[in-house]
Formats: sequence, C-alpha cells, structure tokens
Amino acid sequence: MRILVVNPNTTASMTDKIAAACMRVAAPGTEIVAVNPLDGPPSIEGYFDEVFAVPGLIAEMRKAPDMDAYVIACFDDTGLDAARCITDAPVIGIGEAAFHMASLVAGRFGVVTTLARSVPAIEHNLGKYGLATRCARVRASEVPVLELERPGSQAYHAISAEIARAIADDHAEAIVLGCAGMTDLADRLSSEHGLPVLDGVACAVKLTEGLVSLGARTSKLGGYASPRSKSFAGLFAPASP
Amino acid sequence: MRILVVNPNTTASMTDKIAAACMRVAAPGTEIVAVNPLDGPPSIEGYFDEVFAVPGLIAEMRKAPDMDAYVIACFDDTGLDAARCITDAPVIGIGEAAFHMASLVAGRFGVVTTLARSVPAIEHNLGKYGLATRCARVRASEVPVLELERPGSQAYHAISAEIARAIADDHAEAIVLGCAGMTDLADRLSSEHGLPVLDGVACAVKLTEGLVSLGARTSKLGGYASPRSKSFAGLFAPASP
Amino acid sequence: MRILVVNPNTTASMTDKIAAACMRVAAPGTEIVAVNPLDGPPSIEGYFDEVFAVPGLIAEMRKAPDMDAYVIACFDDTGLDAARCITDAPVIGIGEAAFHMASLVAGRFGVVTTLARSVPAIEHNLGKYGLATRCARVRASEVPVLELERPGSQAYHAISAEIARAIADDHAEAIVLGCAGMTDLADRLSSEHGLPVLDGVACAVKLTEGLVSLGARTSKLGGYASPRSKSFAGLFAPASP
Amino acid sequence: MRILVVNPNTTASMTDKIAAACMRVAAPGTEIVAVNPLDGPPSIEGYFDEVFAVPGLIAEMRKAPDMDAYVIACFDDTGLDAARCITDAPVIGIGEAAFHMASLVAGRFGVVTTLARSVPAIEHNLGKYGLATRCARVRASEVPVLELERPGSQAYHAISAEIARAIADDHAEAIVLGCAGMTDLADRLSSEHGLPVLDGVACAVKLTEGLVSLGARTSKLGGYASPRSKSFAGLFAPASP
Amino acid sequence: MRILVVNPNTTASMTDKIAAACMRVAAPGTEIVAVNPLDGPPSIEGYFDEVFAVPGLIAEMRKAPDMDAYVIACFDDTGLDAARCITDAPVIGIGEAAFHMASLVAGRFGVVTTLARSVPAIEHNLGKYGLATRCARVRASEVPVLELERPGSQAYHAISAEIARAIADDHAEAIVLGCAGMTDLADRLSSEHGLPVLDGVACAVKLTEGLVSLGARTSKLGGYASPRSKSFAGLFAPASP
Amino acid sequence: MRILVVNPNTTASMTDKIAAACMRVAAPGTEIVAVNPLDGPPSIEGYFDEVFAVPGLIAEMRKAPDMDAYVIACFDDTGLDAARCITDAPVIGIGEAAFHMASLVAGRFGVVTTLARSVPAIEHNLGKYGLATRCARVRASEVPVLELERPGSQAYHAISAEIARAIADDHAEAIVLGCAGMTDLADRLSSEHGLPVLDGVACAVKLTEGLVSLGARTSKLGGYASPRSKSFAGLFAPASP
Repeated sequence: MRILVVNPNTTASMTDKIAAACMRVAAPGTEIVAVNPLDGPPSIEGYFDEVFAVPGLIAEMRKAPDMDAYVIACFDDTGLDAARCITDAPVIGIGEAAFHMASLVAGRFGVVTTLARSVPAIEHNLGKYGLATRCARVRASEVPVLELERPGSQAYHAISAEIARAIADDHAEAIVLGCAGMTDLADRLSSEHGLPVLDGVACAVKLTEGLVSLGARTSKLGGYASPRSKSFAGLFAPASP
Repeated sequence: MRILVVNPNTTASMTDKIAAACMRVAAPGTEIVAVNPLDGPPSIEGYFDEVFAVPGLIAEMRKAPDMDAYVIACFDDTGLDAARCITDAPVIGIGEAAFHMASLVAGRFGVVTTLARSVPAIEHNLGKYGLATRCARVRASEVPVLELERPGSQAYHAISAEIARAIADDHAEAIVLGCAGMTDLADRLSSEHGLPVLDGVACAVKLTEGLVSLGARTSKLGGYASPRSKSFAGLFAPASP
Repeated sequence: MRILVVNPNTTASMTDKIAAACMRVAAPGTEIVAVNPLDGPPSIEGYFDEVFAVPGLIAEMRKAPDMDAYVIACFDDTGLDAARCITDAPVIGIGEAAFHMASLVAGRFGVVTTLARSVPAIEHNLGKYGLATRCARVRASEVPVLELERPGSQAYHAISAEIARAIADDHAEAIVLGCAGMTDLADRLSSEHGLPVLDGVACAVKLTEGLVSLGARTSKLGGYASPRSKSFAGLFAPASP
Repeated sequence: MRILVVNPNTTASMTDKIAAACMRVAAPGTEIVAVNPLDGPPSIEGYFDEVFAVPGLIAEMRKAPDMDAYVIACFDDTGLDAARCITDAPVIGIGEAAFHMASLVAGRFGVVTTLARSVPAIEHNLGKYGLATRCARVRASEVPVLELERPGSQAYHAISAEIARAIADDHAEAIVLGCAGMTDLADRLSSEHGLPVLDGVACAVKLTEGLVSLGARTSKLGGYASPRSKSFAGLFAPASP
Repeated sequence: MRILVVNPNTTASMTDKIAAACMRVAAPGTEIVAVNPLDGPPSIEGYFDEVFAVPGLIAEMRKAPDMDAYVIACFDDTGLDAARCITDAPVIGIGEAAFHMASLVAGRFGVVTTLARSVPAIEHNLGKYGLATRCARVRASEVPVLELERPGSQAYHAISAEIARAIADDHAEAIVLGCAGMTDLADRLSSEHGLPVLDGVACAVKLTEGLVSLGARTSKLGGYASPRSKSFAGLFAPASP
Repeated sequence: MRILVVNPNTTASMTDKIAAACMRVAAPGTEIVAVNPLDGPPSIEGYFDEVFAVPGLIAEMRKAPDMDAYVIACFDDTGLDAARCITDAPVIGIGEAAFHMASLVAGRFGVVTTLARSVPAIEHNLGKYGLATRCARVRASEVPVLELERPGSQAYHAISAEIARAIADDHAEAIVLGCAGMTDLADRLSSEHGLPVLDGVACAVKLTEGLVSLGARTSKLGGYASPRSKSFAGLFAPASP
C-alpha cells in the first residue's frame, strides 16, 4: 500500500518530521511518500495562507495519481474537499483524523493549536465534521508553526501549559495537537499529563491504512463528484481535470 | 464610494451581467468596478473549481487596494475568509448577502442553485454562518453555470419549477437564487411565484454600501487578522502580504 | 424613501437621540420619521415591559401605512413578528439588524446590553434568528435604559469595561451594543477598543434602505401572513385588521 | 389549591370548554377558575393576534393575585414570559405543558395545529424550550380556531387525517393537539389512532398541581425578575407593577 | 393510584429516604410502593454501575406488573428506555422529571450531582431529552452517593457551595439536585439560596400522578415497542418477555 | 496484536460470521478472538434486549483482560460506555466505527438497519457521538436480525431496496449497514449501488488496529474512569471491579 502524504507548506524540515512520524506508525506493507510543493507559503497560519497552499497540494496529488490513499498533513485540513474531488482513493486530513480518533478514546477532547488566528478555521471544521460537541475548546498556545522547527524552542512548555489548562478548566479528557509540526511531542505530553494526546499525522496514516484495507473509496455522489472538464490557464491549472 | 465586485470565474459575459445587476441597485454615489481574473476556471461548480479561482480573486483585490468595499460574486462565497484577511474594508460574499437579506423578510427561505455537486458547499456555508435553521432546503436545478449565459437557454423554466417545489414541499417563504448568473431572473421569478426572490449580487451591493456608510470595518481580531509576513514564490504569490 | 422609525417606549428624549442617529447614516434620498407611542412604558427592560409597548408600536405603524419601510428601535425587537403581519414593506428590528451586520465583519460578536433581566430575551432572539452560534456571549452592563439618557451618567465606562471583558474572556471580535439608547456611544467605543462596535439603530436604517432599493417585500407566506379579519374592542384594537 | 386558567381570547364558549376539560382532570382539592378577557381578539391565530391578547391576559392575572398557579390556555403560550414576571407562583402555558408531557411517554411527538400561519410561532417555542429535537413535525390541519366551536364542524376529520399522516410520514409516536379548542377531541383521537394524544389544557392542570404540591416557585433570577416600577398610562397599564 | 418507585441500587436506607420523599408529596389517593433489587451495586456512580443495576430494576418492575406507573429513582435514569418497553403505563426517571419541572419555573437551570464521573452520563441524557440548552452546566460536588447516607456527613455544605458557584458563574436560575440521595436537602437549599431547588424524586411522583390522571400511556410505536418474544437463560432473564 | 471481538448476543452462527468478517480485513499480525456470552438474548433488537446482553458482554471482556483492544459487535454499541470503564485498552463499537469511517469518505451517509424499533437507539447514538448532522436518515429494512442468519432469506433484496431509497430520497452519499449480521453483504451492495457501503465490523477492526498501533488508550478522566470498588452479588457481578 502506498500513501502520499502531502505537507502543503514548503518547509522541507517539517515534511521530514512528518515523514518520520508516518513511518513510526505505518504498518509493514505501507510505503509512505512524503512531499511538499515547491511553491507556496512556508507555513499555514490562518485562512490567507491556505489559499496559496492548495493549488500546490493539488499539483502534488496529480503527480502521483496511482497512490492508494492521500494524507493532507496540515491541521486545517487545507484543500481537503477539493482533493477528494480528483480521486476516489481515500483522502484524509490530519485534523479530521485526530478528531475522529480522539472521539473513540474519550468523551470530550481539547485542541491545542498554534496561533489564535487559526482557531476559527479549526472551529469551522469541527462544526462541518459534526464533532463540535465532542470538543471542549480549541486553545491557542501562541507558538508559531515554524517555531516548532527551531532547535532550542520553548514550544513544548507553552503547549504543555495549555494542556494543563484544558484539563483543569475545560474538563478535556483527551488532547488533540493542532499542528503537523507538533507530531514529535505527543508521546511526551501524554506521559506528562496522563491522558491520551493525539497527533493527527499518525492518526491519518492509520485511518488511511484502514480505509484502503476495507476497500472504501471516496464517494463520487454529492460534493466530491469528479470535476467537470474545463480548460483554463494559470500556473496551477489542471492539465486534465 | 467605490466597490470592487470580483467575479472569481473568468467568463466575461457573466462579469458584465453582474456589473449590470450591481448598477441597477447601486446608490447614486456608488461606483461599481466589476472585474474577473484572466486565469482560472470559466465557472465555479463545486469544491475543486473554487481552489483555482481564489488566487486570482485575491490578486484582483490586491490590484485595487483603495476600494471602500469588496464583493465576491460567486454564490459559494469562494475565498471569502482569505479575502477578509487582506483588508479591513468590508468584504461580502453574495451567498451570505442573500441569506442575511432573506432572513429579514421571511421566517424561512429556500435556495435554488445550479448543480447537485454545489449543494454541500452551500450547506456548509449556511452552517458556518449560523443560518442553517433559516434555510428550508438547498435545491439543485441541474442547470450548469454557463447554461445561464447561453441565449435561448431553458434555465428559467428549470429554476421556476424548482421554486414551485420549494414552496409546496419545503414551505419556503422566500427564495434565494444560488448563482451569480441568475441575477437577471429574480424579478420575474418573484412576480411569477408571489414571494420574495433574492439575488445575492444585488443584496451584496446594498450590504456593502450600508457597511461603508456605517464606517464598519472587518475585524482584525481572530481569524481575519492580517496575514503574517512570509515570502514565497508562485504565480499568484503575494508581493507584500 | 420614507422610513418610519418607532421607538416603542414613550421617552421622547430617546426618540430624539434615535432620530439623530438615523439621520447621521441615512442616504440623501431617505426621509426618517421617528415616533414613539404616547401610552406605554417609558423604557423596555425585559419581557413584561414588552407586552405593553407592542400595541402602541402597532398603532404608530397603522397611522403611517404608506411608509416604504419600518424600523423597531428597541433592541429586544419588540413586536417584530406582529409588525411584519400588517405590511408587506420591510420591517427591521434593531437587534436583528446589528446581529446580521456584525456577522458580516467578524466571525464572532459579543453583545453588551443594559440589565441582566434582558439577557434571556436577547438570547432567545439569537436562537430564533439562527445566529446564536455567531454570538460569543450576551453581557449585561447593569446600566438601566434611562440612565443612558441622564446627563453626567457613568454609563459609558460601565459599557466600556464590559467590552474589555468580552474581548479578553469571550474572544469577541466585534461588539453589538444592546440598547437603542447606546446609539451615540458606538464610535467612541470602537476607537477605544479597536474593533467594530455596531449600533442597531444605524444598522437598521442601512438594511431597510437596502431592502427597499432591492424591492424586497416581507413574505406573506407562513407566519407573516396578513391577519385574518376579526372585530374586537379595546384601546389598541385594530380598526381594520 | 386554586388555579386560574386564562383563555386569552374572548370567546366564552371556548373558555367553557377549557374549564370543563380542566375539571375533568383536576385533583379533588383543586379549584379551577376559568376566565377570559372582555377585550381582545376572539381567537388567536398567529403573531398579530397574540399582541392584543396579552394585555388582557395580564389584567386577568392581576385581578386574581392570590391564586396558587396560573395556566395560559392558548397553544402559542401567548404572553407566558411576561406573565411569569408578575408572580412567583407557577405559570404554565398549554403548549409547553403538552410538549413536556409528550416527551415523557414517547421518543418523538408530532403536533397538529389549526392554521399554517400558526406553525412558525409553535416552532419558535419548541426551539426556545429546547424540545425541537423531540418534535417530528408541526402540521397544520387548516381548521380555524372558531370552527372548532361550531356544532356540526368537520374539524375532527381534518385533524384525524393529519394525525394519520404524522404517524405514517413523520414517524410520530405521540400527538400533541395544537389548540385549546381541541381539548375535547383527545380521547377519541387516541383511541382511533392507537397512540397517546395529548391535550395541553389537561396537561397544564396536572403540571401546575404538581408544581404547587412541590412548593416550586417561578425563579426571580434572570428573565422572570419582577418588573421594575414604572408608571405609564393606557387601558391595560399596570396599576402597580 | 399505585406507583412503584424502584431505587435501582441495593442500599435500603436510601430506598427508605426515597420512599419518605415520595410520600411527602404524594396526593391523597396515591399509594407509593418503594423497592430496591436485592442484587446489584449498592450505589450507581457512572456507566459501569448502571449496567449491573438494570436487570434488577427490570425484575422489580416485572414483579409488580399491575402498577399504574413506575418511577426509576436514580438520577442517571438508569434503564429508563428498557423499562418503557415492558409496560404501557407511564415510566418516569427522576433525572428527566427534574429537568422538565425545572424548565417550567426557570429559563435556565444548573445541575449539582455527586462525582465527576457521573457528569457525562447526565449530559448525554440532557442532549437526548432535548433539554441541553436549558441547562447552564452540570457540576460535580465530589460527594459520593453513599456519603449522603452517612450521619454527620458534610455533604450539605459541599452541595451548597456548588450551588453558589452555579448561580454566580453559570447564571443558573434554578437548581436540579443530581442524586436521589439528595432528596431531603432540597427545601433547605432553596431557602438558603433563594431560588427553586428541584429534587427529581418528588418531581417524578407528581409527573407520574399527572400522567396517570390524564390516562396517558407510554407509546408503543417506535423505540418503546413491546419486546419481541425470545427465550434465553440467565439470572435476570425474562420469564415471559 | 490481539483483539477480542464480542458479539453480545448468543447466536453462535452470527459470531462465526463476524469472526470471518474480522479476519478478512485484519492485518497480518492481528489475532482475532471472537466470542459471545452463553447467557442472554439471541439477538438484540431495541432497548430491552440491550439490558440483558451487557452483563454477559462485560463478563466476556473480564475473562480476557490482556487483550490489546476490544470490539463490541452490535450496531447499537450496546454497553460501550460501561465497557470502556473496565480497561484502558481501546474499546470500539461497530456502530460508531462505521459512522466515523463513513464520515471520511462521504459528506453525508445513510444508515439501513433491521427493525424500526432499533432506529431511536441508533439516532440517540448519532446525537451522542456528534455525528447526527452527517447522517441523512436512519432507515429500517424490517428484516429481523436472525432472518439475516437464515439460508434462503430475502434480506439482501429488502436492504438493497432501502439503499436505493436512501440515495434517491435522502441524498445519501455512502451507506452504513446497521447490523453486525449484514457484514457479508457490504461488498455486493456497494457494487450494485455504486457508492461506499460500510460494515461496522470491518471498520471496527481497522480502527482498533489503528488505535493500538498509535498507543492510544481509553481516557480515564471523566466518564470512563475505572469503577469504584464495590462488592455486590448476582450472576454477572464483578469479581474485582
């Protein structure tokens, strides 16, 4: 089984970290191919950055049309709906992956993400997925995405402090880490706080493996129907939609 | 007052129709500037097309930074959240414009849009805006967007038939037309069916005029904060985010 | 265009303040006629006062049947549903006006109103309009309505303090002022706190102007159907329902 | 125990029918006093009629301040919130009474009311009470209120037909009769259709008896706080609020 | 009228207290029969204990098939749905009883229960009943169930302190006591805090009396249909389902 | 990895079918142990049967405390909350498993279950899990559970017909099969109808494998806390809770 994991930002160190996280949990027969676009924002922090990341994400998927499944490794699930239109293979966002997995081990989970500006997009996703009632609260640690890549960063402590508040004040029973760049922190945070801490990257790998094993395909009825054929120009324009 | 109305698809005849609709309802002191990107999809029908329309939409807004307000003339409110990040002038999508206006003249409205594939995106918007409970149902007429541009099209009749069903079966008390290309049909449909029929293009002009008159600005707290400065390449990449 | 603005309480100084607020934002061709009933409560603070204000409100509307639109200048939107039954011109409450406008410039707004006893009615309206999910919280400043009319009042400071809490604790991105008597405070509060502060009186004027320009009428299907003819006595009884 | 049952319309034959229904179910020690205002609409069919019924309803309650509890015998629960402000005795609307009782004997109930114009007000109440999810659908029989008073009326058959549809199409497991004037039809309809059919008048008597026995009082915290003292003129104006 | 009140735990002193509470509020003609299973958990604190209490509860009901109504005297409404399947007499849980009664005397109520582990089950019930929006918050006093039975316990003070917080922080307008063992504390807590404090045991008696007087039966359409005949072994297995 | 799959009814042929379905999708290293209680109902059709199945389910889990994960192979997710209390290994119900997986491949899914009496329990679960908005409708095929075990049964055709209606009338984009006994029909139904058809048994195996690989444990904060130690008698009573 081959899974394409697309980090939709252009920061290669983050792609490497994501790839490592995927491989740690991948089943023996699973091949992980982790990529990122060459063009686009180096990190995705809010609605604006998302826009410029999605064409590159779609382009990466188009370059690898024979994959068994696709993972979008940005917690906003950037471009997820569009990505599902161009394939009937499973496509999973790491945000939704973590929300669904957390819902299976706890009655109510909290989310700890990077910047406050990213909170509304996450809340909208929770509402759209139907899981808003399972989420106690989305909290911002005010750690920027790329600070997670910096050696010597104090990010762990800021995130850990926010988890403590989520447990005490929001009665969170599990924690979802709200950024792909936090994938290497989950185990240590879980041990420290004594509750499940879920990283969406790892969750997404297991969910895509599961869906592929089941033979489940993305439905082509409704919103994920294959795009109608249209010719248009532009850097990211589809060669053959 | 100058309002930039961006048709995010590349079909110039549709931009012209939208411009005419805007001018019909604009107040005396309002100048309407209607544009469309040169690159991108000729029509927006579902999640996939949206992705390729938004960079061009943002580019058009960046070319005209001194406008008093911006209207996004696609019923999916394509790129609305991102667009709000780059300005503190009001930015209104024609979908939300019609939903809010319909909520002021009826207890419950129905939506009649183009293709079934566009229904989920509209339903998600209604949920996100909070107005899902005001909407009786989103119905597809199965008229493609560009069919609305074709002389001799039978689109009117298909839409009218769907409105009749919305009244009889869904108890809709007003109708929202779910495509910018239907803007010229609203009055005739309202007369035929004896209930308010709202076109988002016209609604958006009046709402932006109103917000500008009030001096209301897009909030920079939360999700619409100005983008953090990032340099990245690509055709549509921001020169100075 | 002629808009009848009814202050449903009997305090003439408040009617004057409301009229001034309307005129500040009215378009050149708009004539504002501001009235209040002669009989009824001098202020509306909660469910009980509402009851006695509505017959007078309806009577004022009946005296001016040729208006192009009607505004109900009480933040509870007192009598709004009944008022919509007696005309097919647009009728807008200042509460709903502010909620809808705030939803167009912010993801989430807070409301700061007068007394705690008024909070439940406002919350019910938000639920009924569908916009409860857009509202972070309704806060009471514990400033009575008529204190807003008293020269030398400390009302501004109490309201400002509550706005500060709405931003810090509720993550409000815009503020809706929850009383017609606060209409003159919006601009100063907006400057002080650096976020949009919306006054429903001004919002309602622009929304009614917009609806009239669009030719939108109140739907007569459903709950706003014209009243069935009934003869009954009593001071406020309709002459010709 | 003395319960004042106020029919808020002026039709004495309906008040008599309501009184009889109350007495059929009242406990031995319960005294029912059934009244109606002299002034106001002869029937309440929608938002407009409600307005003119409430001052008379409040006046009737004020004439009998020593009652142990109050019932508002109109299915719209007309004036319920205001009525709760002027007493700390329990005040029950027949609509809410039936909704709560139906929720105790069935997973999901249907409502069959009089005219389509009354449906939105009932739906709003269900939302406000929190019980919208328990209601399968509110159906209109298109039987006007006073037709229920006419000897030889075909109302029974129209209502029965609508119940059959509620069972077959909406999967209703119990039926709530949506008008005080239907109080004498409940038993026959229940036998005919083989499911619980609840009449709000009878339900309200038992709920008020229950609350009085428990010593439960209407809370004076929040929206039902006693009205602030205000002097104002008008036919129905409170002598001593 | 004979009501079987089943305390589904095996603590006889608690059954006695429940019986006394029932008799205090029962109408003259009502006979209360209070029982508990011989086998099963001595207290019900969370999901696990519930499982082992329900077969005994059902067995107690089967021993008394001629009762006019049944009350399940555990605040989790343990086994309520199953119990409704085996009779068409009314069956009321004390949790739902208190929620419905509180909804009739206050806009918003708070719940104060025993242990934090019981909170999710109560929240699920509120959601299922439709009354989640009426509940400000479910609070745990961290008083175990059987501590309420211990002479000299400090339970009253812990509960009272939590009520104070519910009023101040959650704006609760009434309080629901979240355990059958708190039934003797309601009056004193109501006096101390000046708001309605509802005990589900007493509420359930009055609601069952009411439903029996009305002749209302549990619906056999839908989920409460009589069990299909099945033979199976086991201690609690039904003799004749 | 060892997964205990408990069929909570006593029908061994169904346990065999479930075991086969698990093995078809299990990963190479996964050992499936499928069991059923000896005592209890032969099928679970509604609330009543659930009660008598859960003690046996818990007993089976206690007999195998060293498993890596547990699956409850009844679509009602019978006893799921209680089961989670006695282990910190993952415990997955097949209903929730299918709902979550369907949410990853379609915007909206339909459920086709056995008898109408089982629909409310499924709807309650959907509400509790938060996924009610993702479900278009729960439909009953009126095929009893054990009919699915009978050679020569017409069950396939009844289920297939209901799927056709779910697509046409409810706009379902994927189908969830609402009974463990349907596990062998999924592939054929998916081929016939051209959309994803999900069987909860298979979904649960993949989700438990995933959670175990991730090292995710059931949270012991909140409702799934380990049971407090209590001694009580009875056939199914816990030896050491």
